[in-house]
Amino acid sequence: MFKINEYFEGKVASIAFQTSNLPATVGVMAIGSYKFGTTQKEVMTVVSGDLTVKLEGDSEWVNYQAGESFTITANSSFEVKVMVETAYLCTYE
Amino acid sequence: MFKINEYFEGKVASIAFQTSNLPATVGVMAIGSYKFGTTQKEVMTVVSGDLTVKLEGDSEWVNYQAGESFTITANSSFEVKVMVETAYLCTYE
Repeated sequence: MFKINEYFEGKVASIAFQTSNLPATVGVMAIGSYKFGTTQKEVMTVVSGDLTVKLEGDSEWVNYQAGESFTITANSSFEVKVMVETAYLCTYE
Repeated sequence: MFKINEYFEGKVASIAFQTSNLPATVGVMAIGSYKFGTTQKEVMTVVSGDLTVKLEGDSEWVNYQAGESFTITANSSFEVKVMVETAYLCTYE
């Protein structure tokens, strides 16, 4: 019923669904470092754990805890360091 | 890498992971009604959408929105009505 996605040899897994107004995914990232590209604007919210993130064009790494969000513009990318298995919500606009 | 679980012919799907201190899942429920049993104490948090819940032994249905949590005791059960595709976090104690 739901589309399950796996990336980086399964170190990132997500479930795609539809919120009341936006397509979204919930997923989990294993400990590690990853780089993601975007085709749409994405809003990432940490659900459990934390993510240290560097957006394309930025020089700073910023840490986001559970409940905190960050936005990635369309056709861009972001790098992320994961120090504990982290769950996230991503909405696509 | 992550264990993916599907229930009710795929209408509920979840990804199992380990938080800094507890086993957990993040998952999505399709529109519908479900009954879940527990073997451990569970704390369910709505991440996106909402759940209308009746705990075993209760007569009342209670609605939980994004960010709200409810607790189910071990060896119990709960019924849930889902009116919009809803993402949740569940921790097991």
